[in-house]
Amino acid sequence: MTGTTAAPTVNSQLDPADLHRIHMYWRAANYLSVGQIYLLDNPLLREPLRAEHIKPRILGHWGTTPGLTFIYAHLSHQIKRRGTEMMWIVGPGHGGPAAVATAWLDGTYTDVYPAVSQDAEGMRRLFRQFSFPGGVPSHVAPETPGSIHEGGELGYALSHAYGAAFDNPGLVVPAVVGDGEAETGPLAASWLSSKFIDPRRDGAVLPILHLNGYKIANPTVLARIPEADLVAMLRGYGYEPHIVAGDDPATMHHSMAATLDTVLDRIDAIWHGARYEGIVSDIRWPMIVLRTPKGWTGPHEVDGVTVEGTWRSHQVPLSGVRDNPEHLRLLAEWMRGYGPEELFDAVGAPTPETTALVPEGQRRISASPHANGGLLLKDLVRPDFRRYAVDVATPANHTAEATRVLGGYLRDVMRANPTNFRIMGPDETASNRLDAVFEATARNWNAHLLPSDTDLAPDGRVMEVLSEHQCQGWLEGYLLTGRHGLFNCYEAFIHIVDAMFNQHAKWLKVTRHLPWRRPIPSLNYLLSSHVWRQDHNGFTHQDPGFIDHVLNKKSELIRVYLPPDANTLLSTMDHCLASRDYVNVVVAGKQPGLTYLPMDQAIAHCTRGLGIWDWASTDAGTEPDVVLACAGDIPTMETLAAADLLRRHLPHLRVRVVNVVDLMRLQPATEHPHGLSDRDFDTIFTTDKPIIFAFHGYPWLIHRLTYRRHGHPYLHVRGFKEEGTTTTPFDMVMLNDLDRFHLVMDVIDRVPGLGEQAAHLRQHMADERLRCRAYTREHGADAPDIRDWVWPG
Amino acid sequence: MTGTTAAPTVNSQLDPADLHRIHMYWRAANYLSVGQIYLLDNPLLREPLRAEHIKPRILGHWGTTPGLTFIYAHLSHQIKRRGTEMMWIVGPGHGGPAAVATAWLDGTYTDVYPAVSQDAEGMRRLFRQFSFPGGVPSHVAPETPGSIHEGGELGYALSHAYGAAFDNPGLVVPAVVGDGEAETGPLAASWLSSKFIDPRRDGAVLPILHLNGYKIANPTVLARIPEADLVAMLRGYGYEPHIVAGDDPATMHHSMAATLDTVLDRIDAIWHGARYEGIVSDIRWPMIVLRTPKGWTGPHEVDGVTVEGTWRSHQVPLSGVRDNPEHLRLLAEWMRGYGPEELFDAVGAPTPETTALVPEGQRRISASPHANGGLLLKDLVRPDFRRYAVDVATPANHTAEATRVLGGYLRDVMRANPTNFRIMGPDETASNRLDAVFEATARNWNAHLLPSDTDLAPDGRVMEVLSEHQCQGWLEGYLLTGRHGLFNCYEAFIHIVDAMFNQHAKWLKVTRHLPWRRPIPSLNYLLSSHVWRQDHNGFTHQDPGFIDHVLNKKSELIRVYLPPDANTLLSTMDHCLASRDYVNVVVAGKQPGLTYLPMDQAIAHCTRGLGIWDWASTDAGTEPDVVLACAGDIPTMETLAAADLLRRHLPHLRVRVVNVVDLMRLQPATEHPHGLSDRDFDTIFTTDKPIIFAFHGYPWLIHRLTYRRHGHPYLHVRGFKEEGTTTTPFDMVMLNDLDRFHLVMDVIDRVPGLGEQAAHLRQHMADERLRCRAYTREHGADAPDIRDWVWPG
Repeated sequence: MTGTTAAPTVNSQLDPADLHRIHMYWRAANYLSVGQIYLLDNPLLREPLRAEHIKPRILGHWGTTPGLTFIYAHLSHQIKRRGTEMMWIVGPGHGGPAAVATAWLDGTYTDVYPAVSQDAEGMRRLFRQFSFPGGVPSHVAPETPGSIHEGGELGYALSHAYGAAFDNPGLVVPAVVGDGEAETGPLAASWLSSKFIDPRRDGAVLPILHLNGYKIANPTVLARIPEADLVAMLRGYGYEPHIVAGDDPATMHHSMAATLDTVLDRIDAIWHGARYEGIVSDIRWPMIVLRTPKGWTGPHEVDGVTVEGTWRSHQVPLSGVRDNPEHLRLLAEWMRGYGPEELFDAVGAPTPETTALVPEGQRRISASPHANGGLLLKDLVRPDFRRYAVDVATPANHTAEATRVLGGYLRDVMRANPTNFRIMGPDETASNRLDAVFEATARNWNAHLLPSDTDLAPDGRVMEVLSEHQCQGWLEGYLLTGRHGLFNCYEAFIHIVDAMFNQHAKWLKVTRHLPWRRPIPSLNYLLSSHVWRQDHNGFTHQDPGFIDHVLNKKSELIRVYLPPDANTLLSTMDHCLASRDYVNVVVAGKQPGLTYLPMDQAIAHCTRGLGIWDWASTDAGTEPDVVLACAGDIPTMETLAAADLLRRHLPHLRVRVVNVVDLMRLQPATEHPHGLSDRDFDTIFTTDKPIIFAFHGYPWLIHRLTYRRHGHPYLHVRGFKEEGTTTTPFDMVMLNDLDRFHLVMDVIDRVPGLGEQAAHLRQHMADERLRCRAYTREHGADAPDIRDWVWPG
Repeated sequence: MTGTTAAPTVNSQLDPADLHRIHMYWRAANYLSVGQIYLLDNPLLREPLRAEHIKPRILGHWGTTPGLTFIYAHLSHQIKRRGTEMMWIVGPGHGGPAAVATAWLDGTYTDVYPAVSQDAEGMRRLFRQFSFPGGVPSHVAPETPGSIHEGGELGYALSHAYGAAFDNPGLVVPAVVGDGEAETGPLAASWLSSKFIDPRRDGAVLPILHLNGYKIANPTVLARIPEADLVAMLRGYGYEPHIVAGDDPATMHHSMAATLDTVLDRIDAIWHGARYEGIVSDIRWPMIVLRTPKGWTGPHEVDGVTVEGTWRSHQVPLSGVRDNPEHLRLLAEWMRGYGPEELFDAVGAPTPETTALVPEGQRRISASPHANGGLLLKDLVRPDFRRYAVDVATPANHTAEATRVLGGYLRDVMRANPTNFRIMGPDETASNRLDAVFEATARNWNAHLLPSDTDLAPDGRVMEVLSEHQCQGWLEGYLLTGRHGLFNCYEAFIHIVDAMFNQHAKWLKVTRHLPWRRPIPSLNYLLSSHVWRQDHNGFTHQDPGFIDHVLNKKSELIRVYLPPDANTLLSTMDHCLASRDYVNVVVAGKQPGLTYLPMDQAIAHCTRGLGIWDWASTDAGTEPDVVLACAGDIPTMETLAAADLLRRHLPHLRVRVVNVVDLMRLQPATEHPHGLSDRDFDTIFTTDKPIIFAFHGYPWLIHRLTYRRHGHPYLHVRGFKEEGTTTTPFDMVMLNDLDRFHLVMDVIDRVPGLGEQAAHLRQHMADERLRCRAYTREHGADAPDIRDWVWPG
């Protein structure tokens, strides 16, 4: 099946001893995989197989498994010979039995879980626990040693692999891509990651496209296009594909071994060329296309229907084993066919021959410390963020571009951590005004360069590609292998990775409770170009709902911050970059925005997470008549402007202004570790006074966080209610009734007994809204007094 | 720049008159585009350009615009000559000025918006309204005639185009793909759509990959890989790429015209071959790679820096026009360079020469009725869903697989609508047990077929590819052009299209208020393989949060249904398929589940949206002591089992069971059109009795919907709290405290004065939980009494 345009497959012969040990190992791994799917007991088949040895619910995926064990055996063989450092990525992660079986054979599994010993009892436990209540998941999972890549949602194998390879110059990351997965968008785009890797300072990814031909119920597209087209596509993406195809084990072992020899030699040659001869660009990385039958070595035919080599072997080829004697017989025959009596010794341990190809210690793929990144984690060197503070002599009197200020800090983080910190962003780092980082490093780029290009280089540490999926996938791979990073993104489009975030949060949720998994750096999002300032773009770019989405995940690992100005952003981000095992979401504006707090106060405010701003309040430390709360830069400005209006027009009204940076403070302490006690909440927000809350996002989120608070019946929230278009900043807040005038009207509507003066003010506010709208419609800009409003000093 | 391996570019000469009119049209469209970005007044430059003619905020994207106008001019020229029916897709939708300018030149814009007339005053309005408060967005938008594709988020141009082409055998859909967009995952995967189109019954998509080389601040990858690689990649995806490259307008006109001649001839030949000669498969569709400078014909250099042909022309090449006289001069020079005095007549209308290439009536691209799909919409023929009902002699005594029952109905929908209904799903239609549809049609497949394949054919109407992005994109394109469909998906992985859903919901929100846009069929989601029954897969596949996500969008267009059994699912889905302009989310189980209501009662229940189930209640029409509410199939079963336990153990307790199908009924009537009045809500849920609500999804969603209800302080919600793994069904509900025993404990904890008997029962329930957990851990299955529980008849 080798395509004429693909690289020639080397067919030199394996040494017979090597062939034997590879095949032994593969048979053992397959045996252990089948055992996990089916057996409760009688693991070594030392007695006749009976129905009661079979699990009552047979759950798992056989189809992809023998291909994975085949790859693992061959990779181990190469490591043993060459000493190469490898960590693998199992794209078809539902082949969980393969990863568990090989880790057990290598001894890693028993290192991590001593009760699952390398003997008959350990094997019994290994089998029983798989897909069993109280046991381990059916997929490659956080519980699986050697994995950073969960087998749930598909599409991220290559981007995780590239993320792992960045800044690991000695590491080869074979990444198995399933042919189902290859149909997904994120995977299709990730082939181009080859244009973002530096052969001098990065390791190598070795994609192994595993074409076994079928998904759950359909053929796969890439298995059914002409091979010349497949090869052309992969060459187009910058690879040199090598094809290993067939179903005869011996032939396939020879072919795979020779091909791995070739591609690993090629990787060595690329590294050598880059590191000693300066050949950095125009590199065609090798890859493998592996065609094997789905369910290879499993039952060929069941109940008169072909199973091996078809979608019918996707899950369990024999589904009726407990009740159908013929199925039971076929299972016994299938398992005995691997020769367990030859593979395992008297106590049930793998024989020395079976594990002869297993590399030593951390060279075992399952034992790679990269796959338990916290082991390798070095603290991020953080410059003193106070050095980047903007002067704030009087609050709300001057402006700064918060993200631009942050850029200076990030530049120096970049300088201080030249090998373990990267920034990801979909072509928006400069747009988000973090461009100071380009003083420290370039954008990563290993495609063609023109003399006119600026800030582009193969060793750049800002990773920009117009794919949020790639940014997220690369960053996940980088964090999971123990390094640090930040994803900056337009707020609306971070929803593109909602599902990826889900998977990462689920991973963290599980690993936090596995003692052998060491903590890794947090996943940090900086969302800028946010809903309120999409002047160039409009409604499609206006969506603050990512916060809502992340809050569905376990509260122990979710943090959401809305710093209102430059100094609070600096303090917040420094805190996030130092944290572990969280997902931090920071929302901050890039446009010139008012500054409120000098750095010392900003730190204190961020440490508290929320607080009363006395300078803006008129309750003079007594019980207020109304609380104006706010979270987010634009809502904070509108709230302060409303407080200013109230101070001037209703001077006797006692107004308390509360600003919220850490959204999780609003939740009850029972719901979130950051949650305020009820007593503190009541002290700040009162229990019976109107609270007008101006919020950056969808208003109901604040209700969701506070519905158990005593003051909740008096809470009224303004936020984005899905009204938007291309218009001016103030028109945007007016469209959503979040503007200062409306906030004043809300106060008047809710504070009882304000009298006639307030009624007049209310009318005046309504008139002001009309004036602003008319001005904007006529001039295409916000009225000057709105645009230039500052807090009266 | 033509690549050696690409199809040869035809360089035959255009007729000079054709060249002249294409160039005239292009110049006019470019003039009108620049005018939109910059001018408030003086549209025809009949007086010297002054600062006050310039918009105060210059917002828009010039970079991609001249390429789009170039394409539009050439497509129009071909339509005029050939009579081809075309609808275009503008992937680089931020080139909004191009789509508006060409629609105005064609007369379509004035047809739709008469105030924007084809004269000087109309042109002034056209310019002023663009990106202006109260005007039109800066992107191609719902307001733009001729578009079904919003220019916001990127990645969906090709899948929308294919969706539009399905079942439109005479339609050619040129789809402009920006080179930035081409880096996204969804776009990368969508090239393979060519394997899912039938040249007999579908139209054709003509991809035009527009390489202008730059994104916001970076080069684009596909513009910077070797051209041989680019061609190989596109050939690999099954296309025959034709390259049109250069910057000299006359040469480019000749080249583009000749190439369009070639590719449109080729499409005709493919259609002819398929329709008259039976050549359906192994087709290599033509496409165009168009390389033009970014910001083509704009200012070449500004302030000493090159702008044309670089990322600096992405937005506005001249940003200081109002304050910088040199910029103002350059703008005037730029615009006058297009020769407005020659393009427009005395009143400001385009001259006959300028519009000589414009096709007639609906053949104008902007006037295509396909792009306003409601115009072409035919009602779906729906069989009587009652015919598929399952018998329910006694409630909760028999089981059915709800989605399998639905499959019979969908099969007949498919049969009754052979050209305007499709089902999309990522390889999960059979897994979701809708496989009866394969009695009516096959899966669509136009890659290689093997003799062993079943239910695969080029004209199949079930669209399966392992990419939720493609499923969603195809379906959107299909719906927006006036046809009907259903997307069936695993519940957890529908989050993959969160962002796409956002964009579609935003589109609907705007179009619902544009009278000229006709309603289109609703976007229908069937989410199965849901959180509670992921027996094979576990935690990564457990996420019910899509409901939370969709509820952030405008309530007027969002509907969420949780039918508890087969008959309610039939009734619900029939209702959804008949609706217009909504997004309907239906969550239903595929596993055998209890059936509760005979069809007549199911219809009545679904019509009410929620209701008291008297047969399961013990309040006998009086005020209850406690309300057990439920939504979703599994929570409904647990609630009924809890009610059964309470009936047996605390016979004097008055329990009311309420089932909710239509989640929107819970919201206040002021918040959602389906919302119950407070009076009705209070009658059903009481105002002061404990409500124990067992919910399918995340519990706080119910709080969010009900926090304004009088009874809310007494509401206690159980749902998925992000605890999951591969385990048994009952163990899953136990992990999340949603099980029957825990519900009983919740009742006992919340109903005052139940006495000692209740305390004993509470302990008994806790013991039962331990018993079930122990049984499951030992046997790998749920205890038989749990598994086989039915309502005592």
